[in-house]
Amino acid sequence: MAGVRVKTVADPYSEHAKDWAEKLGIEQLVSNHEIIFNDAEINCVFICSPTDTHTTMIKAAAKAGKNIFCEKPISFSDEETIEAFKAVEKAGVKLQIGFNRRFDKNFDRVKKCVATGKIGELHILKITSRDPEPPGLDYVKSSGGLFMDMAIHDFDMARFVSGSEVEEVYVQGAALINPEFASLGDVDTAIITLKFANGALGVIDNSRKAVYGYDQRVEAFGSNGAVEIGNETETLAKLSTNSGVELDQPLHFFLERYNEAYIREVQEFFEAIQKDKAVPCSFEDGIMAQRIAQAAKLSLTTGKPVRVTKLIK
Amino acid sequence: MAGVRVKTVADPYSEHAKDWAEKLGIEQLVSNHEIIFNDAEINCVFICSPTDTHTTMIKAAAKAGKNIFCEKPISFSDEETIEAFKAVEKAGVKLQIGFNRRFDKNFDRVKKCVATGKIGELHILKITSRDPEPPGLDYVKSSGGLFMDMAIHDFDMARFVSGSEVEEVYVQGAALINPEFASLGDVDTAIITLKFANGALGVIDNSRKAVYGYDQRVEAFGSNGAVEIGNETETLAKLSTNSGVELDQPLHFFLERYNEAYIREVQEFFEAIQKDKAVPCSFEDGIMAQRIAQAAKLSLTTGKPVRVTKLIK
Amino acid sequence: MAGVRVKTVADPYSEHAKDWAEKLGIEQLVSNHEIIFNDAEINCVFICSPTDTHTTMIKAAAKAGKNIFCEKPISFSDEETIEAFKAVEKAGVKLQIGFNRRFDKNFDRVKKCVATGKIGELHILKITSRDPEPPGLDYVKSSGGLFMDMAIHDFDMARFVSGSEVEEVYVQGAALINPEFASLGDVDTAIITLKFANGALGVIDNSRKAVYGYDQRVEAFGSNGAVEIGNETETLAKLSTNSGVELDQPLHFFLERYNEAYIREVQEFFEAIQKDKAVPCSFEDGIMAQRIAQAAKLSLTTGKPVRVTKLIK
Amino acid sequence: MAGVRVKTVADPYSEHAKDWAEKLGIEQLVSNHEIIFNDAEINCVFICSPTDTHTTMIKAAAKAGKNIFCEKPISFSDEETIEAFKAVEKAGVKLQIGFNRRFDKNFDRVKKCVATGKIGELHILKITSRDPEPPGLDYVKSSGGLFMDMAIHDFDMARFVSGSEVEEVYVQGAALINPEFASLGDVDTAIITLKFANGALGVIDNSRKAVYGYDQRVEAFGSNGAVEIGNETETLAKLSTNSGVELDQPLHFFLERYNEAYIREVQEFFEAIQKDKAVPCSFEDGIMAQRIAQAAKLSLTTGKPVRVTKLIK
Repeated sequence: MAGVRVKTVADPYSEHAKDWAEKLGIEQLVSNHEIIFNDAEINCVFICSPTDTHTTMIKAAAKAGKNIFCEKPISFSDEETIEAFKAVEKAGVKLQIGFNRRFDKNFDRVKKCVATGKIGELHILKITSRDPEPPGLDYVKSSGGLFMDMAIHDFDMARFVSGSEVEEVYVQGAALINPEFASLGDVDTAIITLKFANGALGVIDNSRKAVYGYDQRVEAFGSNGAVEIGNETETLAKLSTNSGVELDQPLHFFLERYNEAYIREVQEFFEAIQKDKAVPCSFEDGIMAQRIAQAAKLSLTTGKPVRVTKLIK
Repeated sequence: MAGVRVKTVADPYSEHAKDWAEKLGIEQLVSNHEIIFNDAEINCVFICSPTDTHTTMIKAAAKAGKNIFCEKPISFSDEETIEAFKAVEKAGVKLQIGFNRRFDKNFDRVKKCVATGKIGELHILKITSRDPEPPGLDYVKSSGGLFMDMAIHDFDMARFVSGSEVEEVYVQGAALINPEFASLGDVDTAIITLKFANGALGVIDNSRKAVYGYDQRVEAFGSNGAVEIGNETETLAKLSTNSGVELDQPLHFFLERYNEAYIREVQEFFEAIQKDKAVPCSFEDGIMAQRIAQAAKLSLTTGKPVRVTKLIK
Repeated sequence: MAGVRVKTVADPYSEHAKDWAEKLGIEQLVSNHEIIFNDAEINCVFICSPTDTHTTMIKAAAKAGKNIFCEKPISFSDEETIEAFKAVEKAGVKLQIGFNRRFDKNFDRVKKCVATGKIGELHILKITSRDPEPPGLDYVKSSGGLFMDMAIHDFDMARFVSGSEVEEVYVQGAALINPEFASLGDVDTAIITLKFANGALGVIDNSRKAVYGYDQRVEAFGSNGAVEIGNETETLAKLSTNSGVELDQPLHFFLERYNEAYIREVQEFFEAIQKDKAVPCSFEDGIMAQRIAQAAKLSLTTGKPVRVTKLIK
Repeated sequence: MAGVRVKTVADPYSEHAKDWAEKLGIEQLVSNHEIIFNDAEINCVFICSPTDTHTTMIKAAAKAGKNIFCEKPISFSDEETIEAFKAVEKAGVKLQIGFNRRFDKNFDRVKKCVATGKIGELHILKITSRDPEPPGLDYVKSSGGLFMDMAIHDFDMARFVSGSEVEEVYVQGAALINPEFASLGDVDTAIITLKFANGALGVIDNSRKAVYGYDQRVEAFGSNGAVEIGNETETLAKLSTNSGVELDQPLHFFLERYNEAYIREVQEFFEAIQKDKAVPCSFEDGIMAQRIAQAAKLSLTTGKPVRVTKLIK
C-alpha cells in the first residue's frame, strides 16, 4: 500500500514468528509491545491480542498518540470499553474496530440494496453464520462464549446491513455438537431473534460446526423484494458423474472467505488516517455489537427476550 | 385415478360452480352437503369448507360412515378437534388432514435426508414461508390469524421434516405490510423460534407479501451436513442482457407450486382407503400443528416463549 | 382429455400389452392395425411403429380419412415422405409430426425470447443433446443412424428456436463410446455446425452416453443478449457434506424429461382437430428435419460441409 | 513478490505513462526499450508491444541474455516465430508466452478433472468465448483477425485442457455484429470445430459482442462424466423483485475476469526463473496456438476443414 510501511511487530512469543517476519520483510520483531507505543516514528498500531488485553492497550496506544485498529470485541465489559474510548477521544486519535465482514463485497452489496431502497422497507433480515469446526475448549473458556466471540460478527452485520439498532434479543441455544460447551455455560448452536429500532425483525442461526465449510449467508427481505447472497467457493466447477452433480464446498474458514475483506479493511483504515476521514467501523459499532452479545447471553440464561442497552452519546 | 369416481359436489353457491362442474364432467352439483352424507353410494368425502364448519361436518360424515379428507386446520379449538376425532374413531372411518406440502417431492427429499441420517443428527431446521400477497382483511378476521391460517403449514412441515415434536415456541411478529393487521390482533410478518423434543432448534420466517412470488424454502442442518431446497420456477431460463442476468421468479402461489403435491395427496388418500393403510397425514398431525399455532399466538401476546401442549393418547 | 376417448390399440405383439391395456382401461387391443383404419368411429390415429412402416401407414390412414399423428422421422426417404404427404393433402386430413421437444416449456421459452426479440437478432444457437446410454447395436442398425434417429430432434429444435431454415451442415463425428458404431457406418459422438438462412450460426453436440443422465440444453445468443436453459432435475435439493456439495442429476431420459411435453403435444394435436386449426408440428417440419439429417450424414461421409435441400412448395 | 523488483518500463509514448509510473513507484520510465536490453542489472523482460514487434524484440532480448515473457501471439508467421525461438534457445534464456487463462483457477480445475481422469476419456470439449464489445476497426486491421487475436486464447485453452494437439479445424464465421468486419476479410462471430489427436472433438463459439459481459466458459465431457465452469461475477447477490430475479452479470472484460490469473502467470514466470524450472507456457504452446489460428483462417476462406501443421522438433 502506497504510503504505508510495516515497521515493528510485537509478539510475546516472538521467537515463533521469526521466520514469518523475515519472509515478509518485517523490519523489527519484538516481544514487548511497549516498544511500538514508544516508537515516535510509528503512528498506527494494530491490536490483535486476546480480548482481555484490548482496553489496556488501547489506552496506552492512545496516550502515545497512535491511531488504533483494534480487533473485535473491544472488551467484555461496557465500562472498560467506554473508558478506553474516552482515552481515544481525549488523545484525538482514530480508532477502528475489526469487523472485517463489513468489507466483504457480497455483504456490502446486500447493505447497499437495503440502503438504496432496492428491496423497499426492510422487514426481515436473516443471517446464517456457521464455523467449520469448533474451537478447543481452552479457547472457549476465555472467548466470552458464542455470542461475544462468534455471533458478535453477526450482530455487527445485522446493524450494518439494516442501518438500524437492535432493540431486543431472544436466544434459543443448545450444546448439540459437544455437551462440554454446556458445562462451560456456553452453547454451540443458536437461533437468535432480533427486533430492530426501525421495526424490522431479524434472525441469526449459528453453529460451531458446519462440516461442509464456512457457511456465511445473508438475506434481506423487504416490502419491494429480497436480496440474498450465498457462500463463496474456490471455483465455479460443476462436476457431473454417475454418482451425482457436484459443486465446490464453501471456502474453508474466515481466512479464505474474508481474505479480500481483510485487505480492504486495512486499506480503508489507512485511507481514513491519510485523508482524515471517519473510520468505516467505529467505537460505536464496537460497543453496540458487544451490548447485543451481552443481551443475547442474558436471554440464554433467563430464557426470555432481553432489551439491548442503548448508547447515550 | 383408477377405481375413483367423483359423484357429487356440494357448494352453498352451487349456481356459481355450474360451468366449472359441467366442464369437468361432475355428475351432480348440489347446494346442500347433506345430500352427499346421505348418499349410500358415496364412501369418501372431501371437506374443504371454512374452518369453523369442519368438526360438525366431520362428525356428520363419520356418522354416515364416510372416509374423510379434511382441510387444515381441523378447527380452532382443541376440544372440538378431539370430539370430532372421537366420532371418527367410533365410526371406524379414515381421516386425512390436508397438509399438502408433505406431498411435495422437494420437501419430501429434505425429510428423507433427515430421516436416513444423510445430514447426521438434526441441529437446525429453517423454514421460509412467504405468500405473494396478503389476503383481504375480511378473510383475515375469520382466518384464525397468521399462525393458524398460514404458519400452520410450516408447523406441520417442522414436525414432518424433523420427525420430532415441537416443545416450545417463541414469536416475534409485527404488522409491517399493513398496520390494519395489528388492529385485528394479527401480524403479517413473523420470526418463529422452535425447540424440538429431540433437542434440535428451528426457525420459521413468515411474510404475507413477497412481491417476487411464493417463497417456500426449507433447510435442514445437522452434525454431518445440510440439505436445502429453493423455490420452484416455471422454467429454467437464464436471460442475460445488458441490464442484468435474469431468472424466473418463484411460482406465483400455492396452486402453482403445490399442483403436483395436491394430486399426490389425493392419490395417497385413496390408496390408504383402497389398501386399508394408515393415512399419510393423520388426526395427530392435525391437532399438533393446531397446538403449535395456539402456542405461537400466545407467545405473540405475552412476548414470552410458550410450551406446546403435549398429545396424551 | 375432454372429448377424447381411446378406443383401440394395435400392437403386433398384442399379447404382451394385455395387462397394460387392461390397467389403463383401453377398450380394445388388437394385433392388426387395419382394424383401426377400418373403424368408422375412429377419427384420429397415432402411428408409433418403426420408421420404415410410417409412410405406408400414413397413406392407409389418410385414405381412411383419419387425422394422423406420426412419430419422427416420417421416413428415411424424401420421395416416400412427399408421397405420404400428398396422400394426406388429398384426403384433407391433419398430419402432426412427433417432435415432442417443441412442447417443452423450457425450450418454448427460449424460442419465445428469440421470436420476440428479447435477445435481439440471433447470432449463435447452441444445442447440447446427449443420451444417458447408447441403444443396442440391433437398434442402431435399423435406426437410420445418429443423425436420423437422435440428432433429428436437435435439427427440429434448431429450426423451431431460430425460426429459420438450416442451409448448410458440417459434421465432425466419431465412435468414441463403442467402436462397433463405426463398423455400422455410424458415430456415437458428434459436433454439428449449422448455417441458418437468416445468417445465424448454430452448433449441436451429441453423445450417445452421458453417464450423469439425459443432457438437454439450449442456448440462444444474439445482438442484445442470450438466453439459456439447463437440465431439469427431480428435485431442487442441495446436499452439503464434508465430501462435497451435491445437486440432483439431470432426469434420466426422455420419458422423464419430456413427460409434460408429451402430454401437451397430444393436447395440441386434439385441439388442432377439434378447433380445425393448423397442427403445431407439420409435414414441412418433418421433412426439413429429415433433410438436415441426410445432409449431416453426407457431411460425415465426405468430410465436407453439405447444403440442405430446400423445400419447394 | 519477494526477490522481484521492477526497474524500468519502456513506452514509446512514455509521457502518457508518467503519472501511472510514479503512482506505482516505477524507478525508471523510458521511451526506448533498448535501454532495458542494455541494462546489465535487468535479467527479465516483459514484451507487451504490438504483435509485429515481438520477434525482433525477442531476438534482441535473448541476445542480451534476458529471460523473456512475451504476449501472445508470438508473431503472425511461423518462420519468424521459429527464428525467434532459435535465438532464445541459443541464448539459453527462458521464454514464457502470455496465455493468461492457463492461470485461471477455474479453467485449471477443468484441466485437472480431465488430466486425472475424473471425467474418464475426453470426448467433447466446448469453449464459449465472447468479448463484451468489438475493438475499433483500426485495431482489427492490424490484429491478425478474430482467430489470431481473440480465438488464439481458446486454441491454447483447447490444447491446455485436453492435453492433446488439435489436428484439424473447421470454421463457420460471419460478420453479424458489424458488416465492416467482412470488408476487412474478418468475421465477428464464429463456430470452430476441432479434432484432437487423441480422438476427442471440440467446439469453440466466439462473438466479439456479448452485451451482458465477458462470457468465458469451458465444458469438458467424457466417458465418465462432465465438468463445466460458468462465468465469474462481481458478487453472489440474487435480487428478487416483482420484475424478476436478478443475478450479477459476468465480469466486464479480461482485466476483471483474469486479474488473479495475470498475477499467478507472472509469479510462475519468476518462479521458473528463480528455481530454474520449465516455464508453464512455452514456445511450443505459442507456436501451436498460432498454427491453429492459421488453419482456422484458411478454413474460413476455403469453406473446408483444414489440417493443422504439426510441430517437428
